[in-house]
Amino acid sequence: MPVNNQVKVLSPQLENRVRLLVKCPDQPGIVAVLSSFLFNYNANIIESSQYSSDPENGTFFIRIEFHCDNFQEKSAKMAKDFEVIAEDYEMQYKFYNLHKKERTAIFVSKELHCLLELLWEWKNGDLDTEIAVVISNHEEARSIVESFGIPYHYIPANKEIRKQVEAEQIHLIEEYNVDLLILARYMQILTPDFVNHFENRIINIHHSFLPAFIGANPYERAHKRGVKLIGATSHYVTNDLDEGPIIDQDVERVDHRDTVTDLKKIGRQIERRVLIKAVKWHLENRIIVQGNKTIVFH
Amino acid sequence: MPVNNQVKVLSPQLENRVRLLVKCPDQPGIVAVLSSFLFNYNANIIESSQYSSDPENGTFFIRIEFHCDNFQEKSAKMAKDFEVIAEDYEMQYKFYNLHKKERTAIFVSKELHCLLELLWEWKNGDLDTEIAVVISNHEEARSIVESFGIPYHYIPANKEIRKQVEAEQIHLIEEYNVDLLILARYMQILTPDFVNHFENRIINIHHSFLPAFIGANPYERAHKRGVKLIGATSHYVTNDLDEGPIIDQDVERVDHRDTVTDLKKIGRQIERRVLIKAVKWHLENRIIVQGNKTIVFH
Amino acid sequence: MPVNNQVKVLSPQLENRVRLLVKCPDQPGIVAVLSSFLFNYNANIIESSQYSSDPENGTFFIRIEFHCDNFQEKSAKMAKDFEVIAEDYEMQYKFYNLHKKERTAIFVSKELHCLLELLWEWKNGDLDTEIAVVISNHEEARSIVESFGIPYHYIPANKEIRKQVEAEQIHLIEEYNVDLLILARYMQILTPDFVNHFENRIINIHHSFLPAFIGANPYERAHKRGVKLIGATSHYVTNDLDEGPIIDQDVERVDHRDTVTDLKKIGRQIERRVLIKAVKWHLENRIIVQGNKTIVFH
Amino acid sequence: MPVNNQVKVLSPQLENRVRLLVKCPDQPGIVAVLSSFLFNYNANIIESSQYSSDPENGTFFIRIEFHCDNFQEKSAKMAKDFEVIAEDYEMQYKFYNLHKKERTAIFVSKELHCLLELLWEWKNGDLDTEIAVVISNHEEARSIVESFGIPYHYIPANKEIRKQVEAEQIHLIEEYNVDLLILARYMQILTPDFVNHFENRIINIHHSFLPAFIGANPYERAHKRGVKLIGATSHYVTNDLDEGPIIDQDVERVDHRDTVTDLKKIGRQIERRVLIKAVKWHLENRIIVQGNKTIVFH
Repeated sequence: MPVNNQVKVLSPQLENRVRLLVKCPDQPGIVAVLSSFLFNYNANIIESSQYSSDPENGTFFIRIEFHCDNFQEKSAKMAKDFEVIAEDYEMQYKFYNLHKKERTAIFVSKELHCLLELLWEWKNGDLDTEIAVVISNHEEARSIVESFGIPYHYIPANKEIRKQVEAEQIHLIEEYNVDLLILARYMQILTPDFVNHFENRIINIHHSFLPAFIGANPYERAHKRGVKLIGATSHYVTNDLDEGPIIDQDVERVDHRDTVTDLKKIGRQIERRVLIKAVKWHLENRIIVQGNKTIVFH
Repeated sequence: MPVNNQVKVLSPQLENRVRLLVKCPDQPGIVAVLSSFLFNYNANIIESSQYSSDPENGTFFIRIEFHCDNFQEKSAKMAKDFEVIAEDYEMQYKFYNLHKKERTAIFVSKELHCLLELLWEWKNGDLDTEIAVVISNHEEARSIVESFGIPYHYIPANKEIRKQVEAEQIHLIEEYNVDLLILARYMQILTPDFVNHFENRIINIHHSFLPAFIGANPYERAHKRGVKLIGATSHYVTNDLDEGPIIDQDVERVDHRDTVTDLKKIGRQIERRVLIKAVKWHLENRIIVQGNKTIVFH
Repeated sequence: MPVNNQVKVLSPQLENRVRLLVKCPDQPGIVAVLSSFLFNYNANIIESSQYSSDPENGTFFIRIEFHCDNFQEKSAKMAKDFEVIAEDYEMQYKFYNLHKKERTAIFVSKELHCLLELLWEWKNGDLDTEIAVVISNHEEARSIVESFGIPYHYIPANKEIRKQVEAEQIHLIEEYNVDLLILARYMQILTPDFVNHFENRIINIHHSFLPAFIGANPYERAHKRGVKLIGATSHYVTNDLDEGPIIDQDVERVDHRDTVTDLKKIGRQIERRVLIKAVKWHLENRIIVQGNKTIVFH
Repeated sequence: MPVNNQVKVLSPQLENRVRLLVKCPDQPGIVAVLSSFLFNYNANIIESSQYSSDPENGTFFIRIEFHCDNFQEKSAKMAKDFEVIAEDYEMQYKFYNLHKKERTAIFVSKELHCLLELLWEWKNGDLDTEIAVVISNHEEARSIVESFGIPYHYIPANKEIRKQVEAEQIHLIEEYNVDLLILARYMQILTPDFVNHFENRIINIHHSFLPAFIGANPYERAHKRGVKLIGATSHYVTNDLDEGPIIDQDVERVDHRDTVTDLKKIGRQIERRVLIKAVKWHLENRIIVQGNKTIVFH
């Protein structure tokens, strides 16, 4: 039975705080219509970022964070009113009320550094989510996960039983009402069905500077090639292996003395900070996927 | 007689491209009123960045870049209409038409690396200014500056003749109709009068990571202290030595083997990239000074 | 009663692996005499790094890591033979057998990020030490520390009872036979007596880019000054506050939107990686203190 | 007729300063025999760095910089004596007297930023070489190169006339007695014959973070892939396109707003600093090529 591991406090601050993400064909007047709409509801814009792929005939993207007194009471009417604008401007959009935390599931195998980073940032109050469940094909992480009061499900996995394993996983994800899946060094390939089921909702960390070293054993191959920097990449998972929309990347300097083992140690530091950034940005609704790229509003 | 060293082409693109910077007390509705104003003039917002020091009773800052057909004809009326809004919202503001390039004067002494960086970026089309004049208390830079077709004025300077030197400099700056002064390793102290004359219009590069090593000989002192990183800082000049609003900073790693000479060599690379960024951001109207800090809209 | 929390395996690899650190007046022939000495004992040099403050009349430093079969049996004779060379060349030196792990004590207050980083790196096998004890003036860290099987001692501390507190701490440090003290955000000032007692054996993390923001509240002051980079510094503790020999420093970019709280969050990431590096380098005998500076052999 | 464009001063400092690079099968005693050899000639070791691919049956590499009074007189006898040691230990080795500057040829096409960086660092005294000649398939760089007093040869090039062009280039390289070829954004493919002729003596700058984006148009492809970092790589040229031993790499952060043109601008800054580092390290004899990798002694 899933249990929320953080006490829920109805914070009026968060109840009235909302993020709006919009994507539509660019044309003059979009900002005017959006900001006037919000002003009519006495909402105060706290933060706003926008981007146009091309001011002439391009696509327009905007992220607005606003405060609106009594939002809970107004939200139904706002949603209805906004429909009209959205239709006029052909907008895809979504309102996110900060009061409702996104629920995450973390998938992990034997390497725990990314999981630990997520757990500690979360414990520290720096990861604004409810970690609903951790799912693993190994038992290594159980004791640490359970010490945080988070349910842990061990589902052995391999190529032969993939379909059955994923059915079980999907069942759990639904039972725990999960919004976002985080692959924190989960070393199993997912089927196209599974991936399609969670479009733009699975974040993976790949242990190389993509598109260099796509696929298995990137540190071994980086060592063999003699690169002077190694990296990691967080991205949304699609059905092209390691080809999904990149969210963040980072690198560290290495040299001829570093063995493959050294690269892995250095790499772990990069992986965990690149994954945590992607997860935070997703939870802050800073990311819009457009084709195979991401727009990240910092 | 000052000569512009770049051919002037009336670019309709630039004639109709405008940046608006606004600063005012925060309150709901500012974005709505600004964007509606622009929409009424058929202007299309290309880029917009905003910041509020505090949504409740704080100060609101916005930078909007927009395209407006026939701006040259409309601008007088727009300016007049905007006056009304500005008064209502207690706005400090300014419109910048990209058609009108800012004019810069570069001050330099004997070390030429920052000057050279500015000249090459400018020659390469990456520095959107007219370099009106170079002023120096030495002759070292004359031949290179003149090879770019830029006027060079040698004004010997020292503590004793400061007032007279500055009078001459101000005369030149006015003659050349200069908007921005760049101290590209100009090793003379400026008087309070001179500084006040060009408030928020003088950019200096200091060869340390401020507030560490304020004042003279920062590399010598960094070496003596045994720091593991050295840096540089670009800032607007105020009458508190090296205490003006910081625009950009960067660092490089050093180690015990590096002599003071090595630090200076490494430092030159930092200085030139930190100065050039500050100058570009200023020319792109990305910087708003607030108290002793800068807001830089990237 | 202190217990070692890692199983001890007699690794022949480590039993025969030794590091030699030497400091002496520079003159020709030092490398020849050292390498011939080792060769006569059939030792194979694995790694060697050297530095001379000045080839003429400067100070020479060298770190040699070598493998020597049956080192345990030979070591007494080697030590005696080496005495002769050391006297000839006026060497200060020390042999470190990797078989004997250094023992550390971690001091912590309420902020746990640096402690956690140390614990996890250690658990992961990446910190080559025995964490003998954690000492704190608060109870916050107890459960996590004890879950690692490490003894935890709570010693309340404040200005009034400093002498008595330190007496108790020194007693514990001796009881646990500690070699290195790590101040992982321990927020108490140490007395000169305490510091002198552990010369070059106390590593502190300061939450600023020294020498900027020496003393209390560096993030608040960095915010007030409007810096564009914040940093952290690991250093050996001396009796000049935040003026001890710097071991490592690093920085991260911040901007006008970052509040003091944001700076602290970003800073925590810097602090933990800058501290862990210093501790690792110390444990790998890579650091030689010279005056108020460090030589770090990478 | 080639002319040296820097006044030659017989510096006794440089006349007696020598670098020795050695590569041989690893075994105990190598450092002892080398350092004793040098000590017997009264040479003082200034700097020494070594690396072993594996202490047991690996390959040993060492770079020693030493000062030796009256080296010019002793060098012939030293060379002869060293032969004996070299044979015993199966050493590949070379002595480099700093008195004799390496001579470089720079190849460039239309993009001048890397060439300019080389010229200015050289003018500034920070590039320890004689730039003997600049060879280009365009005329863009002539005036700037000649203003530095360096001979400029325009040799038009394309796929059809490759053999003939290279014959002409080789003729020039021999006439100017060139040691090192620098491809500073020279946009022509070289034939296997040409490359073999100058093994480990041609340094190229590739405008991507290899092995990502091998081949043409890396910035366009980086933009299309939506990477969050772009990079540059300096490497020795081999006959596998962009697959030669990597010397240095670096990256800069980009985001969704950056167009291909922006990436190119940002990339130019990376390219020039990554190329200049590789050239400096080569000239300081810090690089040993081993297989398809480099050992770089910092």
